[in-house]
Amino acid sequence: MTLDYRHVATWMRDAGPLSDIVISSRVRLARNIKGFQFLSKADAQQKLELLEYIRAGLMNSDLANELTFLKIQDTSPLEREILVERHLISKHLANSQSPGGLALSADESLAVMVNEEDHLRLQAMSGGQQLMETYQRLVKIENILDERIQYAFSPDFGYLTACPTNVGTGIRVSVMLHLPALKLTGQLDKIFRAANDMKLAVRGFFGEGTEPVGDMFQLSNQTTLGKTEIDIINDLISEAVVPVVDYERKAREALMDEKPIELDDKIFRALGVLTNARMIASEEAMYQLSLVRLGINLGRIEGISLETINDLFLFIQPAHLQYMNNSELNPLQRDMARADYIRHRLQQ
Amino acid sequence: MTLDYRHVATWMRDAGPLSDIVISSRVRLARNIKGFQFLSKADAQQKLELLEYIRAGLMNSDLANELTFLKIQDTSPLEREILVERHLISKHLANSQSPGGLALSADESLAVMVNEEDHLRLQAMSGGQQLMETYQRLVKIENILDERIQYAFSPDFGYLTACPTNVGTGIRVSVMLHLPALKLTGQLDKIFRAANDMKLAVRGFFGEGTEPVGDMFQLSNQTTLGKTEIDIINDLISEAVVPVVDYERKAREALMDEKPIELDDKIFRALGVLTNARMIASEEAMYQLSLVRLGINLGRIEGISLETINDLFLFIQPAHLQYMNNSELNPLQRDMARADYIRHRLQQ
Repeated sequence: MTLDYRHVATWMRDAGPLSDIVISSRVRLARNIKGFQFLSKADAQQKLELLEYIRAGLMNSDLANELTFLKIQDTSPLEREILVERHLISKHLANSQSPGGLALSADESLAVMVNEEDHLRLQAMSGGQQLMETYQRLVKIENILDERIQYAFSPDFGYLTACPTNVGTGIRVSVMLHLPALKLTGQLDKIFRAANDMKLAVRGFFGEGTEPVGDMFQLSNQTTLGKTEIDIINDLISEAVVPVVDYERKAREALMDEKPIELDDKIFRALGVLTNARMIASEEAMYQLSLVRLGINLGRIEGISLETINDLFLFIQPAHLQYMNNSELNPLQRDMARADYIRHRLQQ
Repeated sequence: MTLDYRHVATWMRDAGPLSDIVISSRVRLARNIKGFQFLSKADAQQKLELLEYIRAGLMNSDLANELTFLKIQDTSPLEREILVERHLISKHLANSQSPGGLALSADESLAVMVNEEDHLRLQAMSGGQQLMETYQRLVKIENILDERIQYAFSPDFGYLTACPTNVGTGIRVSVMLHLPALKLTGQLDKIFRAANDMKLAVRGFFGEGTEPVGDMFQLSNQTTLGKTEIDIINDLISEAVVPVVDYERKAREALMDEKPIELDDKIFRALGVLTNARMIASEEAMYQLSLVRLGINLGRIEGISLETINDLFLFIQPAHLQYMNNSELNPLQRDMARADYIRHRLQQ
């Protein structure tokens, strides 16, 4: 392994505003390099040149001390899976046969994917709702890189990207939301329809094309053209994040007021399963962890920290389980290792 | 309440042979009184006379000091439900509009129903497999009563009873079996077919017409004519109880050998649910208790006694819950009281 994955990213320890519901904020900028073919038209040699050009640009910049640069092809399949589970690279990049790269800060709050769909995907992450701060941090990075790398930019369209939906600002801002009460009260569909009307995307825990697990939903902008980055972020916050957080809060209050025993029953049964199971599939574990997280947030469960639950969401994933067990595990062995790990962490 | 129902019957504390699988043994003798109409033809006045005749016979006999006599019509609906839950009277007698009675020993190991289907139903119960001992105890009781009461008896047919299936010896012998491993390994159907071939009845926890709950099955003879009581009992033991106990033991061993983690997972999840639920329906509680009982018997769960589990099987029933809470409870309140009681007992 190139890096040490035994701990969660440092940035995750900083819970941030609204962290009872907003797990994390993420900003991504798609950029391409002037003078290089878009990746769909580039051959392996050109991709290698691109990788080297960007690596040199990054590692000769003022960011060099902060960053570790990985060539994806030099990493093991398990390490690539771990990077996906940590949301640092996409499945697309992990599975890519052509030269790709990742520049990563020590706290994992900054990740630069090279040769994913675009030449460059700059990403910054923070705990809670910190979209604007996260964006501003990312802009600083972009500016530092700007001294070394010339971006493909059109005065008419803005930043040019591989996919037309990214043209313009190239920005995608997203929050990971924990919405167990909206789920329990059957209000998610309503929220999703409203998000759709606002041209927002709702996705699962692992982004595009994935199912929601553990009542975690990623909410993000879909279009990047015609608005400034600041407007896109402010609109997402004011029109989506704040209202959805408010709905979830109200749903939690309603559950507490109207069905306190039913709620406690669900929460404590989840805790009972997690502290007793000897085998547990990833999906069930995330579902039960979600309820325990709700129980902690509502003050129903004491003695277990949100940090522990956030850790568990990460470490019960297949690649992390195998990494920590230092061996390949088949699905049955993973279910056993997952149950053991959860019991161990919750009984501390 | 006529009696104190806050504890399980004393006889249940004496676990008896094979008690890991055989919960209890029960012998019942159906008798009618010479010179009185069968109940299907008796009017209310005749039933009252019968009740008084039998009460006097019982309470003037050498058994008087051991017995409490209840007139069913003097008991409250809740007390009648409690008696049913304790397997001391049948639902039929509890719901009967005409005069009925129950004579009960302090340890509840002897119960005499008056004016149920027959004039008299003498029953004796013991823990574990003690069918022959239980029968012998019951015969002594029958003989004592014989001095006061003359049974309807035909030299050709034997004891005369209301239902032809009881004519002859009037005996029904039954065991309550706990068969979780045969259930888990999908072998129950095979057992039930074999029992059927042997003219044995397989019934649920509450006897005739009830569904099995908590993997508890009552196995009993169906015919009483043409064999002596001793043969009926010996045949049930050797042809049914011993083989079924053996099958269940083998199934338990197979589960331990072949699927130890799956088994532990089921057992400990059940414990986790029982120690954490805030609401639990009777059926689910019995299902989970059954698995915990198995876990204790297999040495997987420590620190919880079989006595506690046997207590719980009794006290989580609706009438007992209401008796102990000293108030009427609707189904939702019962589910809550049940969960609270189970948590309380398992956390001691």
